[in-house]
Amino acid sequence: MTTLNLHRQPAPPLYERIKGTLREGILSGHYAPASLLPSEAALGEQFNASRITVRQALADLQNEGLIFRRHGKGTFVSQPKAFQNVTALQGFAEAMSAQGHAIRNRVLKLRTVPAPTDVAQALQLAPGTAVTELHRVRLLDQMPVSLEVTWLPEALGSIVGRADLVTRDVFLVLEQDAGVALGHATLAIDAALADHATAAALDTGAGAALLRVERLTHDARGAPIDFERLYFRGDAFQYRLRLDRQVAAHAQSILPLQGTV
Amino acid sequence: MTTLNLHRQPAPPLYERIKGTLREGILSGHYAPASLLPSEAALGEQFNASRITVRQALADLQNEGLIFRRHGKGTFVSQPKAFQNVTALQGFAEAMSAQGHAIRNRVLKLRTVPAPTDVAQALQLAPGTAVTELHRVRLLDQMPVSLEVTWLPEALGSIVGRADLVTRDVFLVLEQDAGVALGHATLAIDAALADHATAAALDTGAGAALLRVERLTHDARGAPIDFERLYFRGDAFQYRLRLDRQVAAHAQSILPLQGTV
Repeated sequence: MTTLNLHRQPAPPLYERIKGTLREGILSGHYAPASLLPSEAALGEQFNASRITVRQALADLQNEGLIFRRHGKGTFVSQPKAFQNVTALQGFAEAMSAQGHAIRNRVLKLRTVPAPTDVAQALQLAPGTAVTELHRVRLLDQMPVSLEVTWLPEALGSIVGRADLVTRDVFLVLEQDAGVALGHATLAIDAALADHATAAALDTGAGAALLRVERLTHDARGAPIDFERLYFRGDAFQYRLRLDRQVAAHAQSILPLQGTV
Repeated sequence: MTTLNLHRQPAPPLYERIKGTLREGILSGHYAPASLLPSEAALGEQFNASRITVRQALADLQNEGLIFRRHGKGTFVSQPKAFQNVTALQGFAEAMSAQGHAIRNRVLKLRTVPAPTDVAQALQLAPGTAVTELHRVRLLDQMPVSLEVTWLPEALGSIVGRADLVTRDVFLVLEQDAGVALGHATLAIDAALADHATAAALDTGAGAALLRVERLTHDARGAPIDFERLYFRGDAFQYRLRLDRQVAAHAQSILPLQGTV
């Protein structure tokens, strides 16, 4: 690295300029959410660019989640994403209803299975122990936003299986129906691409970006009781949180935030 | 939804069974990290499946990040992901060196630009105000893990621009060289697909899954001073955190974790 390289930047390629201009137009509100963008031909004319160059700019904006395409209808500006403030441990319905969203769940599977290796390890069971496995799609204002796969020890699972899973969070069923006092959860957050089954469940294309959360919830005595994999549509959902540079010594002793998943 | 549908599950398709078996083999350690999986032909014979079915199972495992392919060499088991415990506000080098990792940065761009709409809004500047823009690839044990794009008000940016950006976190430069007391940051976390430039910087394919973090850092008096977009390779990195069901009233007043990005 030399200073020379850093300060004599070449002009950005044309597709970068098209992308930047459209990006500004979207972020400034010139192109409103859900509105139709100009056609590829019109953009080509506006920027004096080939169709291929316009498509490269649009593909980047689509990867970023700023726009989406409807076959035969054109390119549209994305809606602002739904978000969940990550503060205390909350179920999705609990967190999102507080913001005025309507939540319903589509129950895809509810069954008893031998615990796979990773599930058994998380729940501190012998591999192959029977566990309840629940697959639900969470609908936010009628749009599929996440797929939740939940594993519970069978004793808790049989109580959860009798509850109204179309409207209720598992956390609330555990507290209210099973009488469990929830303690803390450890979360591991990363990104992955949608496989066929997840894409179908979330009404998105295979290969779409997913925010993936592995959450292991413990009861108030520290025993692991609920292991989940949550797959959120990357184009529809966001986690938000706040971090302080200096965590007060007092607060740290109350909230030992060391992840241990 | 009827109980009937839930309890009479059809047998899973063959590719799901192949996927499940390989998944178990990887998670149980039967196939070790970095080891070569059996060839497609060998898997086809083992499961009495067509090449297409085997490929579908492998594609899903690759989307999940459990395996990766090297052209002409075969399919390998992924290494365990690097992770950062999200507790207090920390720079990447600060957080990862504490775990014994070696961090270096590749500086791609350092320049003064008119603030785009979203950057100006975040930093509370008039649109078009000159800001410093820094693009760095963070290398973890010599592997590219994240692309960080940072915007700073020009007065701070000129100080940061004179620092050793190959080894130092911007947070530490702000504190040590610019004498800024850092306060809190708000984070928005989602997932996106890599565009061409990001894919090239992170040595991954276009369309790879990225964990995307938008972070706005404030000084101790609450003024926004550093706006960043962090793009982590989904197959190489994880955020981890801990949440409590009941946040102690005392702790809540110390750590008002309401995201406001």
